[in-house]
Amino acid sequence: MSLINALNWRYATKKMNGQSVPQDKVDQILEAAHLAPTSSGLQPYEIIVITNPELKKALLPYTYNQTQIVDSSHLLVFAAWDNYTEDRINNVFAHTHSERGTPPESTVDYQKTLVGMYVPRTAEVNFQHAARQAYIGFGVALAEAAMLKVDATPMEGFDNAKYDELLGLRERGLKSVTILPLGYRDETGDWLAGLKKVRRPKSEFITEFA
Amino acid sequence: MSLINALNWRYATKKMNGQSVPQDKVDQILEAAHLAPTSSGLQPYEIIVITNPELKKALLPYTYNQTQIVDSSHLLVFAAWDNYTEDRINNVFAHTHSERGTPPESTVDYQKTLVGMYVPRTAEVNFQHAARQAYIGFGVALAEAAMLKVDATPMEGFDNAKYDELLGLRERGLKSVTILPLGYRDETGDWLAGLKKVRRPKSEFITEFA
Repeated sequence: MSLINALNWRYATKKMNGQSVPQDKVDQILEAAHLAPTSSGLQPYEIIVITNPELKKALLPYTYNQTQIVDSSHLLVFAAWDNYTEDRINNVFAHTHSERGTPPESTVDYQKTLVGMYVPRTAEVNFQHAARQAYIGFGVALAEAAMLKVDATPMEGFDNAKYDELLGLRERGLKSVTILPLGYRDETGDWLAGLKKVRRPKSEFITEFA
Repeated sequence: MSLINALNWRYATKKMNGQSVPQDKVDQILEAAHLAPTSSGLQPYEIIVITNPELKKALLPYTYNQTQIVDSSHLLVFAAWDNYTEDRINNVFAHTHSERGTPPESTVDYQKTLVGMYVPRTAEVNFQHAARQAYIGFGVALAEAAMLKVDATPMEGFDNAKYDELLGLRERGLKSVTILPLGYRDETGDWLAGLKKVRRPKSEFITEFA
């Protein structure tokens, strides 16, 4: 399937049928997000995968009782770094050098530039930047889900602070930004399933300077 | 090609060879972004497509002289709404109803909820939210480029205010957030072309609650 066809097939599933997404498909969706690019390759976010039914149930009231999260088989939570630190930046480069067999000295100046740019900024500015990177992976993950005919609901409507608490994210320097339940649509029970996909007119959305 | 293979093939091209991307491929990349989901379907951003060589040259000094923007054939600029307003929100719903033939009354309450949520917030908070939505489209656009074997460089390193000025974005209530030059890699001239793609270890990137 082409990605365009996949994007036309997908929609923000409002009602899922409880069927489980096979692990190999979940792995491919996570792999796509893992491969997504981020600013300077820092990947300043993580993905929490929740299959535990009790935990999903506990999160339901903090998700405005949107039942996709319990009727999905896998609930992905995208959580961004709460800040950039010198350690976090340097650790990413150390790993890259170990994977590439390149000399650590070769990026010392670049790392200093990044540290000099990020570390003096407020945690909030850095978190906002990290959150944007998470949204790239989020976009790529939902694209891959659609390619695999797995339904997914991009959702921001949840209590971030409560999610952070229940998932122990703050202690890990993370803040939840968006969630993506994976499952299968309940075609007859979902009011949105049959409705035409509408986007803003392209003439408003795209401007050309030729 | 699978999306995973496409994502493995792509990289942040540092040197492009000047070859033009065919219009039908550019159109598919824009279509993918256009189809990408956004919060409440508001699509609070636009894409500026620059092919004009003089304009790309004028932007070069405000892009830290990164030559991809002039060696690309199409430079995409993702620009988010500077704020949410009642008009902007209501216009999107009016368009949706006209496309679906649904009664405008059917979403009046939902529109009021959105207006009540967004409009009292500061422009900065709303802009940050809109920017995140743009990054979903950005992720989907670069995924589609990779599917079509078109090179693309996700770039945040540019002078946003100068871009806004040169493209007349502020008057339109838009602020540039990220750019994506489209073109073809110069395999011999690009230091990054041959290097192994490295991502943070999956064990650090993914946590499961089973």
